[in-house]
Amino acid sequence: MASPSLRQYSFQVFRDVPPLRQMRRQLVLDKKTVGFVPTMGALHEGHLSLIRQAAAENTDVFVSIFVNPTQFGVNEDLSSYPRTWDSDVAKLEQLNDEFARLGGDTGRITAILAPTSKVMYPASPPSSEVDGDGSFVTITPISRKLEGASRPVFFRGVATVCMKLFNIVQADRAYFGQKDVQQTVVIKRMVQDFHVDTEIKIGDTVREHDGLAMSSRNVYLGNRRRSVGLVLYNALKAAENTYNSGKLARSDILDAANCVTNQVLSEQQALSPSERALYEVDYISLADPDTLDEVESVDPTKGAIISGAVKMLPLEETKPGEDCGLGDGQVPVRLIDNLIFKPRA
Amino acid sequence: MASPSLRQYSFQVFRDVPPLRQMRRQLVLDKKTVGFVPTMGALHEGHLSLIRQAAAENTDVFVSIFVNPTQFGVNEDLSSYPRTWDSDVAKLEQLNDEFARLGGDTGRITAILAPTSKVMYPASPPSSEVDGDGSFVTITPISRKLEGASRPVFFRGVATVCMKLFNIVQADRAYFGQKDVQQTVVIKRMVQDFHVDTEIKIGDTVREHDGLAMSSRNVYLGNRRRSVGLVLYNALKAAENTYNSGKLARSDILDAANCVTNQVLSEQQALSPSERALYEVDYISLADPDTLDEVESVDPTKGAIISGAVKMLPLEETKPGEDCGLGDGQVPVRLIDNLIFKPRA
Repeated sequence: MASPSLRQYSFQVFRDVPPLRQMRRQLVLDKKTVGFVPTMGALHEGHLSLIRQAAAENTDVFVSIFVNPTQFGVNEDLSSYPRTWDSDVAKLEQLNDEFARLGGDTGRITAILAPTSKVMYPASPPSSEVDGDGSFVTITPISRKLEGASRPVFFRGVATVCMKLFNIVQADRAYFGQKDVQQTVVIKRMVQDFHVDTEIKIGDTVREHDGLAMSSRNVYLGNRRRSVGLVLYNALKAAENTYNSGKLARSDILDAANCVTNQVLSEQQALSPSERALYEVDYISLADPDTLDEVESVDPTKGAIISGAVKMLPLEETKPGEDCGLGDGQVPVRLIDNLIFKPRA
Repeated sequence: MASPSLRQYSFQVFRDVPPLRQMRRQLVLDKKTVGFVPTMGALHEGHLSLIRQAAAENTDVFVSIFVNPTQFGVNEDLSSYPRTWDSDVAKLEQLNDEFARLGGDTGRITAILAPTSKVMYPASPPSSEVDGDGSFVTITPISRKLEGASRPVFFRGVATVCMKLFNIVQADRAYFGQKDVQQTVVIKRMVQDFHVDTEIKIGDTVREHDGLAMSSRNVYLGNRRRSVGLVLYNALKAAENTYNSGKLARSDILDAANCVTNQVLSEQQALSPSERALYEVDYISLADPDTLDEVESVDPTKGAIISGAVKMLPLEETKPGEDCGLGDGQVPVRLIDNLIFKPRA
């Protein structure tokens, strides 16, 4: 990461809390509003869409860039998570140019918080062990379901770092993407239970033209796995079509999704190792939108969340000149996605 | 508890969060300062002393009165904790009279937060089980030591409710008594680790004329156990004298304390059941002031905390007309106390 203090930006860059607090306090006195978009950097259109929403609804947008160690398990991909300070900042500058052209009521990005680990975890090195010591926020049982089943410290880390960030920024509104649906449920629950004075807003999942959900991890996919990885979205769409056709039973809805994932996997398995991309389905879930409890049938007055995770395995054989993505197709990539079944009138 | 809305007070009484937030926001715009004193009611001179300190340092004092269920274990004394709304409010009114007489720069109590359990724990009934589900703040390993060893959910409950209250009140300063020394260490750690924008101030332990630390639970003691219960303070004073005489070794300092507790217990055991009050020493600890780790010798540049807990057992036989306290001497009372060994120049 380049030292943020060496350049002049159209926003202030903060590495520590007290100067940011000072700026924040003045904004309160000036009756400005702050929209906060927490990120781990590696910004893509999904983040930019949240920042645009924040700028439309607030005078000031604060963006944090912090790769949070406590949400990665001991054997997870903290070290391989992309760190892209320069291109992130360039994208934020472009957004401010865009907002300036829009003029009028559109807010501006006025602060970037890029704290050190020591600022975020001052008392002790953060633990990634399930039973490790530290200062944590835990939101159970939601955090054990779905993503939490395979990543037991993930939502503890997310809730902990978000509580810190919320306390630092004291935003009027904070923006999260629908793509990480369980995160949105955990954060909304945390804000409610701990009376955090920040409104949580959820932005739609931003997708590539073919439907693949944007994710910072997509850079590791490469063409072959990217194309096969679309299976998750297609499976969820098949389930959604089933719901939209009037069916409510879990078995009907999940069968539609599983049919897609099974068929695509069979097709891939029939190909040679230099042509195919294999994957494992971690889960396909049909759950209550508030509790994330699995449902036997969708309550049409509440709707439901269909969500899934698919692990794209490393390529077995690559071809000369093939675009295999960052890491040459050898980094396993876990894709997640979801669709919201809206309540029926 | 009488309905707080039926009377006119010199302060506003809030049962829910939104109207309090509205008042708080106006205070920010008016550049007023808020000192916050969280309590579980049953106010005594210790609380009043904290409120006086808060009034001396802020324009507005907010007091919360909430008996927090999650800090009581499943077999602990939640139901027997004293609830004394009318006398608490009368004491707060008297304090405001006192502040009015002082005039000048002294602040006033302007808000009482007396929330319902549903307000404080909106999503789910709070769990008091060690492995129970819920939305919690945990601060370990500090929370497992000393008081936490015999009360495993205690500091989880304290940290959780304080995070909620801090988020609701958004105080400039919050006041805690030195008497609950481990609580002060846990809360200061939580505020540091989670960047809570509130300064934590610690008020001296307020004592009866003979040295007994004030506590809401003292009403259960009665004369006989009250007098014998002074053994804890006397043991800590003996240890302090040893430190002040120049000794630093754990054994020297703790021997002085244990000598007092052993001798008083022997004296009591020699008396008849209608004359004596028996007790069990839970622990006497000599610990680092930041980590609460036990120390083998006091680092004279850091000082230390000597603390202890003594459980006063129910009276075996009472005498006609004897003042045995609330519950007729049958409620076991756990006394805690501590002294700070200041660093030596």
